[in-house]
Amino acid sequence: MPSVPRWIDSVVKALGLPENKGQNVFQMATVDASGKPKVRTLVHRELFQPSGRPNLPVILTTTDVRSPKVQELRANPYAELCWWMEGSKDQFRISGPVRVIPSPHADRTAWVKGEPSVAFDVVEEQGFDWEKKRSEVFDNMSAHMKASWCRPPPGSVLQSYQEAKKWTGKVPKLGEAESEDDRRNQEQALQNFALVLIEAVEVDWVQLGEQPNRRTRFLRVGEEWTEEISVP
Amino acid sequence: MPSVPRWIDSVVKALGLPENKGQNVFQMATVDASGKPKVRTLVHRELFQPSGRPNLPVILTTTDVRSPKVQELRANPYAELCWWMEGSKDQFRISGPVRVIPSPHADRTAWVKGEPSVAFDVVEEQGFDWEKKRSEVFDNMSAHMKASWCRPPPGSVLQSYQEAKKWTGKVPKLGEAESEDDRRNQEQALQNFALVLIEAVEVDWVQLGEQPNRRTRFLRVGEEWTEEISVP
Repeated sequence: MPSVPRWIDSVVKALGLPENKGQNVFQMATVDASGKPKVRTLVHRELFQPSGRPNLPVILTTTDVRSPKVQELRANPYAELCWWMEGSKDQFRISGPVRVIPSPHADRTAWVKGEPSVAFDVVEEQGFDWEKKRSEVFDNMSAHMKASWCRPPPGSVLQSYQEAKKWTGKVPKLGEAESEDDRRNQEQALQNFALVLIEAVEVDWVQLGEQPNRRTRFLRVGEEWTEEISVP
Repeated sequence: MPSVPRWIDSVVKALGLPENKGQNVFQMATVDASGKPKVRTLVHRELFQPSGRPNLPVILTTTDVRSPKVQELRANPYAELCWWMEGSKDQFRISGPVRVIPSPHADRTAWVKGEPSVAFDVVEEQGFDWEKKRSEVFDNMSAHMKASWCRPPPGSVLQSYQEAKKWTGKVPKLGEAESEDDRRNQEQALQNFALVLIEAVEVDWVQLGEQPNRRTRFLRVGEEWTEEISVP
């Protein structure tokens, strides 16, 4: 069986250090339709891999399918993540093609599908149930987070900060709706909720906590990972 | 006299909060020559402004002029910064044109100069002494940091982590060299050290510490800043 690339062990180990507690956010850079760079903070949700293929890791995060970043990804379905872990002074830069998995009821233009790529193609061949995954990830979010997908489209203009006070504050878990409002909110949130998948093909790991500092570059060639030491 | 845009006050205030202590790093996204996104962590050094023009703020950070990011900026001299302050849950996304100011003795191709832009043009008209600024910023760095610019070019391949043990560990302040080696190292470090300047023209501030969450977009139109409330 193919094995997990060494950098995944390093990410998992770094995340488990007490000094990195709570450092589960990274910045995702994309390129918009005009060729300009864009970058924002996202919460890391899961390290995903196709069944039996731990050599093809995918980073899973989430978004509102109406957000500008989905439009940007439609124009350029490729991203680089920068995961800085302040406690241990580790930086992982992870890049590769991106897929956005929206509700099956979403407008088809909401899907982001770039050029064919190894991990995503394997997952598709395996007939993976993305809708089940999407529901599970959604349900694991806090009630406050679920409610964020009931807001007007991210980035749209408001007349005042007051308007936000009218928004739904909490949305219960699926199956725990207590009112018609709860059910309507769940439906709306789930309609706007999407998974964002970044297939890792290149990783640059800088260890500023080591003296002398270390840097290692990992590159996936076909399905194999190569490793190269370089100057930090 | 023109005034400081409101978002600068917000950055300064957020940085001064005890819960944000030490949160002086941001991620800078650029686009490489092939159109792919790149992003890495950098240390914020200074909020710079042309003399008498606080309405034209520039974010100042530093780099090794031989680093891949300088090549990327030469191809696309525009960046977006993402400054996430974990303590207060503030995110500032700041974008605009970029200049790289290397040693006057550096290869002229090391300079990054994009299209004309308001703040950089004003600074140039004012005859600002960039070399004096570059030396001052360099001298304020730690001895360990100064030594990092004496390494082989960032990103170049090493045979083993052991090679790094031969590198210079510390470089003293200018004027405090005690040996011929110190002087040679200072000269080399100063030759590779460069300022990176990001002229802010658009700022997106998200306040996740506020309930309900707030988002405000600032846009510089000519020399005036406009402000718009939007959905987080």
